[in-house]
Amino acid sequence: MAIRTVVWGENVHEQTNKIVSDLYPKGMHGCIADALNEDDAISATTATLQEDDHGLTVERLAETDVLLWWGHAAHGDVKDEVAERVCEAVWAGMGLIFLHSAHFSKPFKRLMGTPCNLSWREAGERERLWLTSRNHPIAAGMGNSFEIEHEEMYGEPFGVPEPLETVFVSWFQGGEVFRSGLTYKRGAGNVFYFRPGHETYPTYYNDDVRRVLKNAVHWAHNPAPRLVDPTVAPNVPVEDAPEQIEERGPRLHQDGEEGFR
Amino acid sequence: MAIRTVVWGENVHEQTNKIVSDLYPKGMHGCIADALNEDDAISATTATLQEDDHGLTVERLAETDVLLWWGHAAHGDVKDEVAERVCEAVWAGMGLIFLHSAHFSKPFKRLMGTPCNLSWREAGERERLWLTSRNHPIAAGMGNSFEIEHEEMYGEPFGVPEPLETVFVSWFQGGEVFRSGLTYKRGAGNVFYFRPGHETYPTYYNDDVRRVLKNAVHWAHNPAPRLVDPTVAPNVPVEDAPEQIEERGPRLHQDGEEGFR
Amino acid sequence: MAIRTVVWGENVHEQTNKIVSDLYPKGMHGCIADALNEDDAISATTATLQEDDHGLTVERLAETDVLLWWGHAAHGDVKDEVAERVCEAVWAGMGLIFLHSAHFSKPFKRLMGTPCNLSWREAGERERLWLTSRNHPIAAGMGNSFEIEHEEMYGEPFGVPEPLETVFVSWFQGGEVFRSGLTYKRGAGNVFYFRPGHETYPTYYNDDVRRVLKNAVHWAHNPAPRLVDPTVAPNVPVEDAPEQIEERGPRLHQDGEEGFR
Amino acid sequence: MAIRTVVWGENVHEQTNKIVSDLYPKGMHGCIADALNEDDAISATTATLQEDDHGLTVERLAETDVLLWWGHAAHGDVKDEVAERVCEAVWAGMGLIFLHSAHFSKPFKRLMGTPCNLSWREAGERERLWLTSRNHPIAAGMGNSFEIEHEEMYGEPFGVPEPLETVFVSWFQGGEVFRSGLTYKRGAGNVFYFRPGHETYPTYYNDDVRRVLKNAVHWAHNPAPRLVDPTVAPNVPVEDAPEQIEERGPRLHQDGEEGFR
Repeated sequence: MAIRTVVWGENVHEQTNKIVSDLYPKGMHGCIADALNEDDAISATTATLQEDDHGLTVERLAETDVLLWWGHAAHGDVKDEVAERVCEAVWAGMGLIFLHSAHFSKPFKRLMGTPCNLSWREAGERERLWLTSRNHPIAAGMGNSFEIEHEEMYGEPFGVPEPLETVFVSWFQGGEVFRSGLTYKRGAGNVFYFRPGHETYPTYYNDDVRRVLKNAVHWAHNPAPRLVDPTVAPNVPVEDAPEQIEERGPRLHQDGEEGFR
Repeated sequence: MAIRTVVWGENVHEQTNKIVSDLYPKGMHGCIADALNEDDAISATTATLQEDDHGLTVERLAETDVLLWWGHAAHGDVKDEVAERVCEAVWAGMGLIFLHSAHFSKPFKRLMGTPCNLSWREAGERERLWLTSRNHPIAAGMGNSFEIEHEEMYGEPFGVPEPLETVFVSWFQGGEVFRSGLTYKRGAGNVFYFRPGHETYPTYYNDDVRRVLKNAVHWAHNPAPRLVDPTVAPNVPVEDAPEQIEERGPRLHQDGEEGFR
Repeated sequence: MAIRTVVWGENVHEQTNKIVSDLYPKGMHGCIADALNEDDAISATTATLQEDDHGLTVERLAETDVLLWWGHAAHGDVKDEVAERVCEAVWAGMGLIFLHSAHFSKPFKRLMGTPCNLSWREAGERERLWLTSRNHPIAAGMGNSFEIEHEEMYGEPFGVPEPLETVFVSWFQGGEVFRSGLTYKRGAGNVFYFRPGHETYPTYYNDDVRRVLKNAVHWAHNPAPRLVDPTVAPNVPVEDAPEQIEERGPRLHQDGEEGFR
Repeated sequence: MAIRTVVWGENVHEQTNKIVSDLYPKGMHGCIADALNEDDAISATTATLQEDDHGLTVERLAETDVLLWWGHAAHGDVKDEVAERVCEAVWAGMGLIFLHSAHFSKPFKRLMGTPCNLSWREAGERERLWLTSRNHPIAAGMGNSFEIEHEEMYGEPFGVPEPLETVFVSWFQGGEVFRSGLTYKRGAGNVFYFRPGHETYPTYYNDDVRRVLKNAVHWAHNPAPRLVDPTVAPNVPVEDAPEQIEERGPRLHQDGEEGFR
C-alpha cells in the first residue's frame, strides 16, 4: 500500500500575496503534494489551516503515515488542541517532516523542547546544501551537494537539540551556514527538519528539493502499528513482576491505582 | 563564588502523608538542599509549590545557576506561566536537574518534547545503578555501581529522546531495567534526569545518591553569562551580511521587519 | 532482489567442544543463516575463519549487502588485512551486525575506536531484554521485553561510543545490566551490535532472537550503490570551486597534487 | 594544579619549507604551546615526531592531562605502537585535541573508526566559523562567529561518526561548508576535533583560534584518576554476583579463567 501522506499548508501567503499565488496557484501544499505523488509508493493529499480542525481530525491523523508541515505567518492561529494532537500522533508512530519556517510552528517547538531560534535574511541569495551523512536514505540518488539559486537565508546558531544525525548543512552566499537537514525520533515517530522553501521563490519546483521530500517520506514512514496510548504510564502490580518479589516497606499508592500525571 | 542552587519541592506528600513527613521533617527539598550544602562550592536554598509564583520569580531564576525539581502529586498545579519561565531560564543557560517523578512534570515534558512515559511499581525492591560512561563527571569519585535497598521501580520503555549520554542504567529486583541518568542540552542549558527518589523511602539520605546530586550540580552549571533573549530570531539586513551580496528577487518582508513567530 | 547476507562464523568451538557441536551441528553460523533464510526477502550464506581469506574476499564482500559476525576464541587469528577489508566495505555501505563476543573482534574494535571492554560471567542465568526505543524497526513485531532462560552475563560499563540509538537494555538474574542493542553509522554503512549468543546455550534457536536478527538485516541494508573509494580525500582545484575565487597567499601543495595520508 | 598539556607537532614542514619556518620559528607546536601558556591554569610543553618515542613515552603520557596533535606530511612515520599507546591513554582518561590535518593521523583514525575523508583546496580563502551550540564551554567568551582571512578549505562530507555535539560549522569563500568543531568521548577520555590550522597561514596567531584552544583544553581535561587498565574484561565469578544465583547449564570457561580477546 502506498504511504498515506498529508501535506499541511498554512495557505495564508497564497491568499494574500500575488507573488506567492502566481508562483503556487495550487498553493505551496498543492505543489508539494504533486511532487510526492510523482512517486507511485506515496499517496499524498493536502490539509490547510482554514479547514475544520485545520484538516487534521483525530480520524485523519490515524490514517496518516507521514505528515509534512509548512507554516509561517499564522503559527499562532493553529489551535493548541490540534498541535497537541499532532504531537501525540507522532509519539504513536506517525512520521512528521517540518519545512522551512515551520521551525517556529507549534508542533515543532513542542517536539523539540528548545527555542528553535535562528537568524534570517530575505535577499534571494544562493544556497548550496552539502551532504554530511553519506548514503543517507534521505539523500538517495543524490550527489554530495545541490544548489538553490534563490533562497531566504537561515543562519546558525539554530536552537534545536543535537539531532540523531545531521544530514545536510547549507552554505549561503551572504556568509552564513545552517544545519539544513536534521533527524530526530520522538516517541515512536520519526521527525525530519528540512530548511529550504521560502514562499516567494520557486523552491518546491526544484528537482533536488523534490527528491529530498520524496526520500524523506520513505525515511519517516514507520510501518509498525500505531501505539494505542503513547503517554500512559502503567502500574505493574507486584504479582505481575517479571521476577517474583515480595513487597516491602511503606507505600503511598494502593494496588492498581493510577499514577499522578 | 559558590554555585547558586535552588531545590524546588512540590511539598505535598510532606504535608499529607505521615510516612513522608516523618522521613523528611524538613521536606524532601530541605533534605536535598542539606546534601548539596555539604559541598562548599555549592550554595543551595529551597522553593516550593505553595509560595508565590511557586518561589520561582523571574528575579530568582535570574540568580539561579542550577535548579533541581522534585514533583509528583501536583504536576497539574504548577502554573503554565511558571513552567514556561523555567524552560526559558534553561534555554538562557540555567542548569536543571529533574528528580524521579519529575519525569511527568511540566518543565520536563516541555523540554523533552516526548511522552516521558514509563512503567512503575511501588514494592520497596532493590535498585542497583550501573555506570555506563566511565569517568563521567556526574559519577566522579564513585565505583561501577551502587545500590539502593528500597526503591520504587521505573521500567523501560522510557519515553524520552535519545540523550547526549547515558550515564547510569538501573537494575531492579523485580526484573526491569531503566536508563536512570541521562544528559541533555536544551538551548544554552544543561539538563540531567536522575531516577531515584521515591517519597516513602530514605533515598535522599543515601551517600551515593547525595554524591551524584552534588556532582550533577557541578556538571550542570554553565558559568557563561545568561543569554538575554534565547528565543529571538534576528533579521540580518542585506547590508550587514558577512559577505557583500546584492538583494535579488521578490520579497515578502520589509527591511528590519520582525519575522513571524 | 533478496538482501544478500553472509553469516561469518569463527567455527572453532564447533570443532573443539562437544556441547557446542551437539547444539549447533551445522555450526552457529549455519543455524543463524537458517534463521535468516526463513525470511524470503533475505538470502543468507555462510563464511568461516578456516576458508581462504576467511571466506571474505574482496569480490564476495562487494556482493554482500549485510554481514553478520560471530567470533570468540580466535579473534587474533583473523588477518589484519581481512579485518581492514571488512571495515572498508562497511565504510562503502555494507551493513554489519556484530553478535555477542564479537565485541572483541578486530572489525568491531576498529569501527568503534574504543576499548569495547565489559564484565562477564558464564552461569546460565536468565537474561531479559527490554526495548528502549519504541517501534524501532529492529524490534518490529515484538513486545516491550523478551527472555532468554540461559545466557552468559555481560555487564556494564561497556566500553563503546555513545550510539545513535540504544534499542535494547538487558537485565541479568545475577544483578547486572547491559546495553544489548546499539546502532551506529560508520562511513556509509549501518552497524548494529546485538548481545545474546553464548556458544553453549541454544540462543540462536530462540524465536525472539531470530526475529531481531531478521529485523536487523533489513535495518542494516542500505540499497544505495556502494561508494567506490570511501577513504579518498579529493583536491578541489581553485578553478573548480563552486564559487569563483582567486587564489591568495602562500601554498604548500601544487595543483592536482594528492594530499598526505 | 595547572592542566598538564602537551602539544605534539610533526615538525616536518617547519624543517623543510621556508614559508612555514619563517611563520613559525619555534615550530607550530611551539606557537600553540605559547598560546596555551597565556592561561595560568594551563601548563603546556611540546613533543615532536623526531624525539625518541616521538616524545610520547608511557611515563610522559601518564603525566599528561590533555594532548594536542598536529600532523600532516608524516602520518605514516608515526609508530603504530605509539599511536596505540596514545589511544590507550585516551581510553584511560587523557583528553585529546586533534588539529586540522590530524584528521588523517593514526590516532584520530583509530579513535573514530571511520574513513575521516574530506575534500580540500589550498587557496588562501576566507573561512568563517559559526557557533552551533550556544554557550558551549569550548566557545566561552566568544560571539556567534569568527573569521580567519586565509585558510585552506576542508569540505563535507567529512567521514567521521556523528559527534556528541557539533560546536562549530565553517563557511568557506569558495562555496563549501565543514563541521569544524566536534566533540567525542572514547573510553574515559574526551576528544575534540578543531579544523583550522594550515601550515602556510598564521592561523595559530589568531586570537579567536587561540581562545578556542585554551577553552578546549579546559573542556577536555578530566580530573578523575586515570583508569588503570581500560581494556580489561573482568570475569565475575558466580559467588561474587551482586545477586545470589546458582550456576546452571553447560560451560565453556573454568572459574577465574581469562576471556578470549
